[in-house]
Amino acid sequence: MHRVRFRDPAGSIRQGEWVDGEVSFAGETYDSEEIDVLAPCEPSKIVCIGRNYAAHAAERDEELPDRPLLFLKPPNAVAGHGDTVTLPAERYVEHEAELAVVIGEQCRHVSEDEADEVIAGYTCFDDLSNRDDQDEEQNWVRGKAFDNAAPMGPVLAPPEEVPDDARIQLRVDGETRQDSTLEHLIFSIPELIAEITQYLTLEPGDVIATGTPEGVGPVEDGQRVEVEIEGIGTLEHDVRQP
Amino acid sequence: MHRVRFRDPAGSIRQGEWVDGEVSFAGETYDSEEIDVLAPCEPSKIVCIGRNYAAHAAERDEELPDRPLLFLKPPNAVAGHGDTVTLPAERYVEHEAELAVVIGEQCRHVSEDEADEVIAGYTCFDDLSNRDDQDEEQNWVRGKAFDNAAPMGPVLAPPEEVPDDARIQLRVDGETRQDSTLEHLIFSIPELIAEITQYLTLEPGDVIATGTPEGVGPVEDGQRVEVEIEGIGTLEHDVRQP
Repeated sequence: MHRVRFRDPAGSIRQGEWVDGEVSFAGETYDSEEIDVLAPCEPSKIVCIGRNYAAHAAERDEELPDRPLLFLKPPNAVAGHGDTVTLPAERYVEHEAELAVVIGEQCRHVSEDEADEVIAGYTCFDDLSNRDDQDEEQNWVRGKAFDNAAPMGPVLAPPEEVPDDARIQLRVDGETRQDSTLEHLIFSIPELIAEITQYLTLEPGDVIATGTPEGVGPVEDGQRVEVEIEGIGTLEHDVRQP
Repeated sequence: MHRVRFRDPAGSIRQGEWVDGEVSFAGETYDSEEIDVLAPCEPSKIVCIGRNYAAHAAERDEELPDRPLLFLKPPNAVAGHGDTVTLPAERYVEHEAELAVVIGEQCRHVSEDEADEVIAGYTCFDDLSNRDDQDEEQNWVRGKAFDNAAPMGPVLAPPEEVPDDARIQLRVDGETRQDSTLEHLIFSIPELIAEITQYLTLEPGDVIATGTPEGVGPVEDGQRVEVEIEGIGTLEHDVRQP
Protein backbone atom coordinates (compact mmCIF):
# COMPACT_ATOMS: atom_id res chain seq x y z
CA MET A 1 0.00 0.00 0.00
CA HIS A 2 1.24 3.49 -0.88
CA ARG A 3 0.48 5.80 2.01
CA VAL A 4 0.03 9.55 1.64
CA ARG A 5 -0.12 12.28 4.27
CA PHE A 6 -2.53 15.03 3.28
CA ARG A 7 -4.74 17.83 4.50
CA ASP A 8 -8.38 17.04 3.80
CA PRO A 9 -10.91 19.71 2.72
CA ALA A 10 -11.79 20.35 6.38
CA GLY A 11 -8.13 21.08 7.18
CA SER A 12 -7.42 17.89 9.13
CA ILE A 13 -4.18 16.02 8.50
CA ARG A 14 -4.84 12.41 7.50
CA GLN A 15 -2.88 9.35 6.38
CA GLY A 16 -4.61 7.88 3.36
CA GLU A 17 -3.99 5.32 0.64
CA TRP A 18 -2.76 6.49 -2.79
CA VAL A 19 -3.99 4.54 -5.83
CA ASP A 20 -3.53 5.93 -9.36
CA GLY A 21 -3.67 9.57 -8.24
CA GLU A 22 -6.67 9.05 -5.99
CA VAL A 23 -6.39 9.31 -2.23
CA SER A 24 -8.76 7.52 0.12
CA PHE A 25 -9.26 7.73 3.84
CA ALA A 26 -12.15 6.48 5.99
CA GLY A 27 -14.43 5.78 3.03
CA GLU A 28 -13.85 9.17 1.34
CA THR A 29 -11.93 9.41 -1.91
CA TYR A 30 -10.24 12.57 -3.21
CA ASP A 31 -8.45 13.46 -6.41
CA SER A 32 -4.82 14.08 -5.39
CA GLU A 33 -4.90 17.33 -7.38
CA GLU A 34 -7.67 18.68 -5.15
CA ILE A 35 -6.09 18.12 -1.77
CA ASP A 36 -2.92 19.39 -0.16
CA VAL A 37 -0.45 16.51 -0.27
CA LEU A 38 2.10 16.87 2.54
CA ALA A 39 5.58 15.42 2.94
CA PRO A 40 5.05 11.75 3.88
CA CYS A 41 6.68 12.20 7.31
CA GLU A 42 7.80 14.84 9.80
CA PRO A 43 11.52 14.25 10.26
CA SER A 44 13.39 15.57 13.29
CA LYS A 45 16.41 15.41 10.99
CA ILE A 46 17.31 14.39 7.46
CA VAL A 47 20.66 12.64 7.16
CA CYS A 48 21.92 13.00 3.60
CA ILE A 49 24.65 11.07 1.82
CA GLY A 50 27.07 12.72 -0.59
CA ARG A 51 28.95 11.03 -3.45
CA ASN A 52 27.11 7.72 -3.26
CA TYR A 53 27.07 7.16 -7.04
CA ALA A 54 30.47 7.02 -8.73
CA ALA A 55 29.29 8.76 -11.92
CA HIS A 56 27.99 11.75 -9.92
CA ALA A 57 31.23 12.10 -7.93
CA ALA A 58 33.08 12.08 -11.26
CA GLU A 59 30.91 14.82 -12.79
CA ARG A 60 31.62 17.02 -9.73
CA ASP A 61 35.37 16.17 -9.90
CA GLU A 62 35.26 14.64 -6.46
CA GLU A 63 36.95 11.57 -5.02
CA LEU A 64 34.89 8.68 -3.73
CA PRO A 65 34.77 8.61 0.07
CA ASP A 66 36.02 5.54 1.94
CA ARG A 67 33.03 5.77 4.25
CA PRO A 68 29.67 7.51 3.70
CA LEU A 69 29.90 11.30 3.40
CA LEU A 70 27.17 12.56 5.76
CA PHE A 71 25.44 15.95 5.96
CA LEU A 72 22.26 17.23 7.55
CA LYS A 73 19.06 19.00 6.51
CA PRO A 74 16.93 20.21 9.43
CA PRO A 75 13.10 20.25 9.52
CA ASN A 76 12.93 23.74 7.94
CA ALA A 77 14.14 22.07 4.72
CA VAL A 78 11.04 19.87 4.32
CA ALA A 79 8.72 20.48 1.36
CA GLY A 80 5.99 18.29 -0.10
CA HIS A 81 4.60 17.07 -3.40
CA GLY A 82 3.07 19.92 -5.37
CA ASP A 83 4.81 22.65 -3.37
CA THR A 84 6.60 25.63 -4.87
CA VAL A 85 10.07 26.01 -3.40
CA THR A 86 11.50 29.52 -3.13
CA LEU A 87 15.21 29.27 -3.87
CA PRO A 88 17.81 31.53 -2.25
CA ALA A 89 17.99 34.76 -4.24
CA GLU A 90 20.75 35.12 -6.83
CA ARG A 91 22.24 31.68 -6.23
CA TYR A 92 23.03 28.88 -8.67
CA VAL A 93 20.87 25.95 -7.51
CA GLU A 94 20.94 22.36 -8.80
CA HIS A 95 18.53 19.43 -8.52
CA GLU A 96 19.58 16.02 -7.16
CA ALA A 97 17.15 13.09 -7.50
CA GLU A 98 17.46 10.63 -4.62
CA LEU A 99 15.80 7.64 -3.02
CA ALA A 100 14.87 8.55 0.57
CA VAL A 101 14.46 6.01 3.37
CA VAL A 102 11.91 6.89 6.06
CA ILE A 103 12.63 5.43 9.51
CA GLY A 104 9.85 3.64 11.39
CA GLU A 105 11.11 3.37 14.95
CA GLN A 106 13.56 4.94 17.35
CA CYS A 107 16.86 3.11 16.92
CA ARG A 108 20.59 3.21 17.55
CA HIS A 109 23.45 0.76 16.94
CA VAL A 110 21.49 -1.03 14.23
CA SER A 111 23.47 -3.78 12.47
CA GLU A 112 23.28 -4.22 8.70
CA ASP A 113 21.36 -7.46 9.27
CA GLU A 114 18.69 -5.69 11.33
CA ALA A 115 18.41 -2.57 9.18
CA ASP A 116 15.28 -3.70 7.32
CA GLU A 117 13.36 -3.75 10.61
CA VAL A 118 13.70 -0.01 11.23
CA ILE A 119 12.55 1.10 7.75
CA ALA A 120 8.99 2.44 7.40
CA GLY A 121 9.23 2.85 3.63
CA TYR A 122 10.77 4.69 0.70
CA THR A 123 9.95 7.98 -1.00
CA CYS A 124 11.29 10.27 -3.74
CA PHE A 125 13.54 13.16 -2.74
CA ASP A 126 15.12 16.21 -4.42
CA ASP A 127 18.29 17.29 -2.60
CA LEU A 128 18.21 20.92 -3.79
CA SER A 129 21.73 22.33 -3.61
CA ASN A 130 22.81 25.97 -3.63
CA ARG A 131 26.26 25.49 -5.18
CA ASP A 132 27.44 29.10 -4.81
CA ASP A 133 27.43 28.75 -1.05
CA GLN A 134 28.05 25.00 -0.80
CA ASP A 135 31.32 25.24 -2.67
CA GLU A 136 32.58 27.86 -0.20
CA GLU A 137 31.44 26.24 3.06
CA GLN A 138 33.14 23.75 5.38
CA ASN A 139 29.67 22.51 6.41
CA TRP A 140 26.92 22.72 3.80
CA VAL A 141 24.35 24.79 5.72
CA ARG A 142 23.63 27.72 3.39
CA GLY A 143 24.22 25.27 0.55
CA LYS A 144 21.92 22.44 1.58
CA ALA A 145 19.81 23.38 4.63
CA PHE A 146 17.94 26.42 3.31
CA ASP A 147 14.14 26.49 3.67
CA ASN A 148 12.38 23.82 1.60
CA ALA A 149 15.63 22.41 0.19
CA ALA A 150 14.24 18.89 0.70
CA PRO A 151 11.09 18.26 -1.34
CA MET A 152 9.93 14.67 -0.75
CA GLY A 153 6.96 12.47 -1.63
CA PRO A 154 4.40 11.89 -2.86
CA VAL A 155 3.96 8.62 -0.94
CA LEU A 156 5.57 6.24 1.48
CA ALA A 157 6.06 3.01 -0.48
CA PRO A 158 6.82 -0.43 0.99
CA PRO A 159 10.45 -1.42 0.31
CA GLU A 160 9.36 -4.71 -1.23
CA GLU A 161 7.64 -2.78 -4.05
CA VAL A 162 10.89 -1.05 -5.04
CA PRO A 163 13.25 -3.37 -6.96
CA ASP A 164 16.96 -3.36 -6.11
CA ASP A 165 17.63 -2.09 -9.64
CA ALA A 166 14.71 0.40 -9.65
CA ARG A 167 15.03 3.17 -12.21
CA ILE A 168 15.46 6.69 -10.79
CA GLN A 169 14.82 9.65 -13.08
CA LEU A 170 14.58 13.40 -12.81
CA ARG A 171 12.95 15.72 -15.34
CA VAL A 172 12.94 19.52 -15.49
CA ASP A 173 10.01 20.91 -17.47
CA GLY A 174 9.61 17.45 -18.99
CA GLU A 175 13.23 17.09 -20.12
CA THR A 176 15.08 14.10 -18.63
CA ARG A 177 18.18 15.20 -16.73
CA GLN A 178 18.97 12.20 -14.52
CA ASP A 179 18.32 8.55 -15.40
CA SER A 180 20.01 5.78 -13.47
CA THR A 181 19.18 2.83 -11.22
CA LEU A 182 19.53 2.09 -7.54
CA GLU A 183 21.99 -0.69 -8.41
CA HIS A 184 24.67 1.99 -8.65
CA LEU A 185 24.51 3.01 -4.97
CA ILE A 186 28.01 2.67 -3.53
CA PHE A 187 26.98 2.26 0.11
CA SER A 188 23.80 0.16 0.45
CA ILE A 189 20.85 1.18 2.60
CA PRO A 190 21.75 -1.31 5.39
CA GLU A 191 25.34 0.00 5.36
CA LEU A 192 24.10 3.59 5.66
CA ILE A 193 21.74 2.79 8.54
CA ALA A 194 24.48 0.91 10.40
CA GLU A 195 27.00 3.72 9.92
CA ILE A 196 24.67 6.56 10.92
CA THR A 197 23.28 4.80 14.00
CA GLN A 198 26.77 4.15 15.27
CA TYR A 199 26.70 7.86 16.20
CA LEU A 200 23.12 9.19 16.03
CA THR A 201 19.77 7.90 17.30
CA LEU A 202 17.20 7.91 14.51
CA GLU A 203 13.56 8.73 15.31
CA PRO A 204 10.33 7.61 13.61
CA GLY A 205 9.87 9.85 10.57
CA ASP A 206 13.57 10.65 10.22
CA VAL A 207 14.85 10.48 6.65
CA ILE A 208 18.03 9.17 5.06
CA ALA A 209 18.57 10.60 1.57
CA THR A 210 20.81 8.08 -0.16
CA GLY A 211 22.65 10.26 -2.67
CA THR A 212 22.17 11.27 -6.29
CA PRO A 213 23.25 9.73 -9.61
CA GLU A 214 24.91 11.69 -12.42
CA GLY A 215 23.10 14.37 -14.41
CA VAL A 216 22.62 17.10 -11.81
CA GLY A 217 21.95 20.50 -13.32
CA PRO A 218 20.38 23.92 -12.78
CA VAL A 219 16.82 24.69 -11.71
CA GLU A 220 15.52 28.18 -12.27
CA ASP A 221 12.56 30.42 -11.57
CA GLY A 222 9.31 28.97 -12.86
CA GLN A 223 10.55 25.47 -13.60
CA ARG A 224 8.89 22.20 -12.63
CA VAL A 225 10.91 19.27 -11.29
CA GLU A 226 9.76 15.64 -11.31
CA VAL A 227 11.56 12.84 -9.49
CA GLU A 228 10.30 9.41 -10.52
CA ILE A 229 11.37 6.17 -8.89
CA GLU A 230 10.11 2.80 -10.06
CA GLY A 231 7.81 1.27 -7.47
CA ILE A 232 7.18 4.58 -5.67
CA GLY A 233 5.78 7.16 -8.08
CA THR A 234 6.58 10.71 -9.11
CA LEU A 235 7.33 13.66 -6.83
CA GLU A 236 6.54 17.00 -8.48
CA HIS A 237 7.56 20.44 -7.25
CA ASP A 238 7.98 23.87 -8.75
CA VAL A 239 10.64 26.43 -7.99
CA ARG A 240 10.60 30.19 -7.91
CA GLN A 241 13.58 32.42 -7.42
CA PRO A 242 13.23 36.05 -6.35
CA MET B 1 13.69 35.77 36.02
CA HIS B 2 15.69 32.61 35.31
CA ARG B 3 13.35 29.99 33.91
CA VAL B 4 13.99 26.27 34.21
CA ARG B 5 12.32 23.35 32.46
CA PHE B 6 12.05 20.33 34.72
CA ARG B 7 10.24 17.09 35.46
CA ASP B 8 8.43 17.34 38.79
CA PRO B 9 8.15 14.40 41.23
CA ALA B 10 4.88 13.32 39.55
CA GLY B 11 6.62 13.15 36.17
CA SER B 12 5.02 16.26 34.66
CA ILE B 13 7.17 18.66 32.65
CA ARG B 14 6.96 22.19 34.09
CA GLN B 15 8.51 25.61 33.50
CA GLY B 16 9.56 27.00 36.87
CA GLU B 17 11.63 29.84 38.30
CA TRP B 18 15.22 29.16 39.40
CA VAL B 19 16.52 31.12 42.41
CA ASP B 20 19.74 30.10 44.13
CA GLY B 21 19.41 26.42 43.25
CA GLU B 22 15.74 26.25 44.23
CA VAL B 23 13.04 25.75 41.64
CA SER B 24 9.49 26.95 42.15
CA PHE B 25 6.31 26.35 40.18
CA ALA B 26 2.67 26.91 41.19
CA GLY B 27 3.45 27.47 44.85
CA GLU B 28 5.69 24.39 45.20
CA THR B 29 9.43 24.72 45.72
CA TYR B 30 11.98 22.01 44.97
CA ASP B 31 15.71 21.66 45.52
CA SER B 32 17.21 21.57 42.00
CA GLU B 33 19.26 18.51 43.06
CA GLU B 34 16.06 16.57 43.74
CA ILE B 35 14.32 17.11 40.41
CA ASP B 36 15.22 16.23 36.85
CA VAL B 37 16.33 19.48 35.22
CA LEU B 38 15.75 19.33 31.45
CA ALA B 39 17.34 21.29 28.63
CA PRO B 40 15.68 24.74 28.72
CA CYS B 41 14.08 24.31 25.28
CA GLU B 42 13.28 21.69 22.64
CA PRO B 43 15.10 22.84 19.51
CA SER B 44 14.10 21.61 16.06
CA LYS B 45 17.70 22.46 15.17
CA ILE B 46 20.82 23.89 16.77
CA VAL B 47 22.80 26.20 14.50
CA CYS B 48 26.39 26.33 15.74
CA ILE B 49 29.11 28.81 14.88
CA GLY B 50 32.74 27.79 14.41
CA ARG B 51 35.82 29.99 14.85
CA ASN B 52 34.00 32.93 16.42
CA TYR B 53 36.81 33.77 18.88
CA ALA B 54 40.19 34.62 17.32
CA ALA B 55 42.22 32.95 20.10
CA HIS B 56 40.39 29.65 19.61
CA ALA B 57 40.87 29.67 15.83
CA ALA B 58 44.57 30.27 16.49
CA GLU B 59 44.89 27.34 18.90
CA ARG B 60 43.34 25.06 16.24
CA ASP B 61 45.61 26.57 13.52
CA GLU B 62 42.60 27.75 11.56
CA GLU B 63 42.00 30.92 9.60
CA LEU B 64 39.26 33.31 10.63
CA PRO B 65 36.24 33.06 8.33
CA ASP B 66 35.04 36.14 6.46
CA ARG B 67 31.47 35.20 7.29
CA PRO B 68 30.13 32.99 10.08
CA LEU B 69 31.13 29.32 9.79
CA LEU B 70 27.85 27.45 10.34
CA PHE B 71 27.20 23.84 11.28
CA LEU B 72 24.23 21.90 12.65
CA LYS B 73 23.39 19.72 15.62
CA PRO B 74 20.02 17.95 15.36
CA PRO B 75 17.63 17.27 18.27
CA ASN B 76 19.32 13.94 19.13
CA ALA B 77 22.26 16.04 20.32
CA VAL B 78 20.34 17.72 23.15
CA ALA B 79 21.32 16.97 26.78
CA GLY B 80 20.42 18.79 29.97
CA HIS B 81 21.92 20.03 33.22
CA GLY B 82 22.98 17.12 35.42
CA ASP B 83 22.96 14.58 32.60
CA THR B 84 25.69 12.05 31.92
CA VAL B 85 26.74 12.13 28.25
CA THR B 86 27.98 8.88 26.71
CA LEU B 87 30.79 9.81 24.32
CA PRO B 88 31.49 7.89 21.10
CA ALA B 89 33.68 4.90 21.95
CA GLU B 90 37.42 5.22 21.41
CA ARG B 91 37.30 8.79 20.16
CA TYR B 92 39.20 11.88 21.31
CA VAL B 93 36.50 14.32 22.47
CA GLU B 94 36.95 17.95 23.51
CA HIS B 95 34.77 20.40 25.43
CA GLU B 96 33.81 23.82 24.05
CA ALA B 97 32.10 26.33 26.37
CA GLU B 98 29.65 28.57 24.53
CA LEU B 99 26.91 31.11 25.03
CA ALA B 100 23.71 29.79 23.44
CA VAL B 101 20.88 31.99 22.21
CA VAL B 102 17.37 30.50 22.44
CA ILE B 103 14.90 31.75 19.82
CA GLY B 104 11.45 32.92 20.95
CA GLU B 105 9.43 33.13 17.76
CA GLN B 106 9.31 31.79 14.23
CA CYS B 107 11.35 34.15 12.10
CA ARG B 108 13.16 34.60 8.79
CA HIS B 109 14.95 37.54 7.15
CA VAL B 110 15.57 39.21 10.52
CA SER B 111 17.68 42.38 10.31
CA GLU B 112 20.41 43.06 12.84
CA ASP B 113 18.27 45.90 14.23
CA GLU B 114 15.34 43.56 14.87
CA ALA B 115 17.35 40.62 16.18
CA ASP B 116 16.70 41.35 19.87
CA GLU B 117 12.98 40.83 19.30
CA VAL B 118 13.33 37.15 18.34
CA ILE B 119 15.50 36.15 21.33
CA ALA B 120 13.82 34.26 24.21
CA GLY B 121 16.96 34.21 26.35
CA TYR B 122 20.47 32.89 26.85
CA THR B 123 21.82 29.66 28.29
CA CYS B 124 25.15 27.85 28.78
CA PHE B 125 26.24 25.28 26.19
CA ASP B 126 28.99 22.69 25.77
CA ASP B 127 29.70 22.01 22.08
CA LEU B 128 31.17 18.52 22.60
CA SER B 129 33.42 17.69 19.63
CA ASN B 130 34.69 14.29 18.54
CA ARG B 131 37.91 15.46 16.87
CA ASP B 132 38.96 12.08 15.44
CA ASP B 133 35.97 12.10 13.11
CA GLN B 134 35.52 15.88 12.78
CA ASP B 135 39.01 16.36 11.39
CA GLU B 136 38.31 13.79 8.64
CA GLU B 137 34.81 14.93 7.63
CA GLN B 138 33.61 17.46 5.06
CA ASN B 139 30.51 18.03 7.20
CA TRP B 140 30.89 17.58 10.94
CA VAL B 141 28.17 14.96 11.57
CA ARG B 142 30.03 12.16 13.36
CA GLY B 143 32.20 14.87 14.88
CA LYS B 144 29.52 17.19 16.25
CA ALA B 145 26.02 15.68 15.90
CA PHE B 146 26.40 12.48 17.93
CA ASP B 147 23.81 11.77 20.63
CA ASN B 148 23.92 14.27 23.51
CA ALA B 149 26.75 16.31 21.99
CA ALA B 150 24.93 19.50 23.02
CA PRO B 151 24.48 19.76 26.81
CA MET B 152 22.72 23.04 27.62
CA GLY B 153 21.23 24.79 30.63
CA PRO B 154 20.53 25.04 33.46
CA VAL B 155 18.23 28.03 32.86
CA LEU B 156 16.95 30.46 30.28
CA ALA B 157 18.22 33.88 31.39
CA PRO B 158 16.98 37.24 30.14
CA PRO B 159 19.56 38.85 27.82
CA GLU B 160 19.54 42.05 29.91
CA GLU B 161 21.01 40.11 32.86
CA VAL B 162 24.03 39.01 30.80
CA PRO B 163 26.58 41.84 30.38
CA ASP B 164 28.20 42.38 26.96
CA ASP B 165 31.53 41.49 28.57
CA ALA B 166 30.17 38.58 30.63
CA ARG B 167 32.81 36.11 31.77
CA ILE B 168 32.57 32.61 30.26
CA GLN B 169 34.43 29.78 31.96
CA LEU B 170 34.69 26.03 31.68
CA ARG B 171 36.04 23.68 34.34
CA VAL B 172 36.78 19.96 34.14
CA ASP B 173 36.75 18.26 37.55
CA GLY B 174 37.12 21.73 39.09
CA GLU B 175 40.15 22.76 37.01
CA THR B 176 39.64 25.87 34.88
CA ARG B 177 40.23 25.17 31.19
CA GLN B 178 38.50 28.07 29.43
CA ASP B 179 38.19 31.61 30.79
CA SER B 180 37.26 34.47 28.48
CA THR B 181 34.53 37.06 27.97
CA LEU B 182 31.76 37.56 25.43
CA GLU B 183 33.49 40.77 24.30
CA HIS B 184 35.75 38.58 22.15
CA LEU B 185 32.96 37.26 19.90
CA ILE B 186 33.93 38.07 16.30
CA PHE B 187 30.40 38.01 14.84
CA SER B 188 27.86 39.52 17.26
CA ILE B 189 24.57 37.84 18.13
CA PRO B 190 22.54 40.21 15.87
CA GLU B 191 24.96 39.53 13.00
CA LEU B 192 24.56 35.78 13.49
CA ILE B 193 20.76 35.93 13.57
CA ALA B 194 20.68 38.10 10.44
CA GLU B 195 23.05 35.79 8.56
CA ILE B 196 21.32 32.52 9.53
CA THR B 197 17.80 33.80 8.82
CA GLN B 198 18.85 34.89 5.35
CA TYR B 199 18.69 31.15 4.51
CA LEU B 200 16.85 29.29 7.31
CA THR B 201 13.62 29.90 9.21
CA LEU B 202 14.21 29.69 12.96
CA GLU B 203 11.52 28.21 15.21
CA PRO B 204 10.67 28.90 18.86
CA GLY B 205 13.12 26.88 20.96
CA ASP B 206 15.78 26.73 18.25
CA VAL B 207 19.29 27.40 19.50
CA ILE B 208 22.25 29.34 18.13
CA ALA B 209 25.52 28.29 19.80
CA THR B 210 27.82 31.27 19.36
CA GLY B 211 31.25 29.64 19.31
CA THR B 212 33.93 28.86 21.88
CA PRO B 213 36.90 30.82 23.24
CA GLU B 214 40.42 29.38 23.57
CA GLY B 215 41.31 26.61 26.00
CA VAL B 216 39.44 23.65 24.52
CA GLY B 217 40.77 20.30 25.71
CA PRO B 218 39.94 16.64 26.33
CA VAL B 219 37.09 15.20 28.35
CA GLU B 220 37.30 11.60 29.42
CA ASP B 221 35.32 8.86 31.10
CA GLY B 222 34.10 9.84 34.56
CA GLN B 223 34.86 13.56 34.33
CA ARG B 224 32.53 16.41 35.27
CA VAL B 225 32.25 19.54 33.10
CA GLU B 226 30.96 22.91 34.30
CA VAL B 227 30.19 25.82 31.96
CA GLU B 228 29.65 29.06 33.88
CA ILE B 229 28.51 32.30 32.27
CA GLU B 230 28.09 35.50 34.25
CA GLY B 231 24.41 36.41 34.54
CA ILE B 232 23.19 32.91 33.63
CA GLY B 233 24.64 30.35 36.03
CA THR B 234 26.49 27.04 35.78
CA LEU B 235 25.69 24.09 33.53
CA GLU B 236 27.05 20.83 34.91
CA HIS B 237 27.27 17.52 33.09
CA ASP B 238 29.26 14.32 33.42
CA VAL B 239 30.73 12.19 30.68
CA ARG B 240 31.25 8.47 30.35
CA GLN B 241 33.07 6.73 27.55
CA PRO B 242 32.61 2.99 26.85
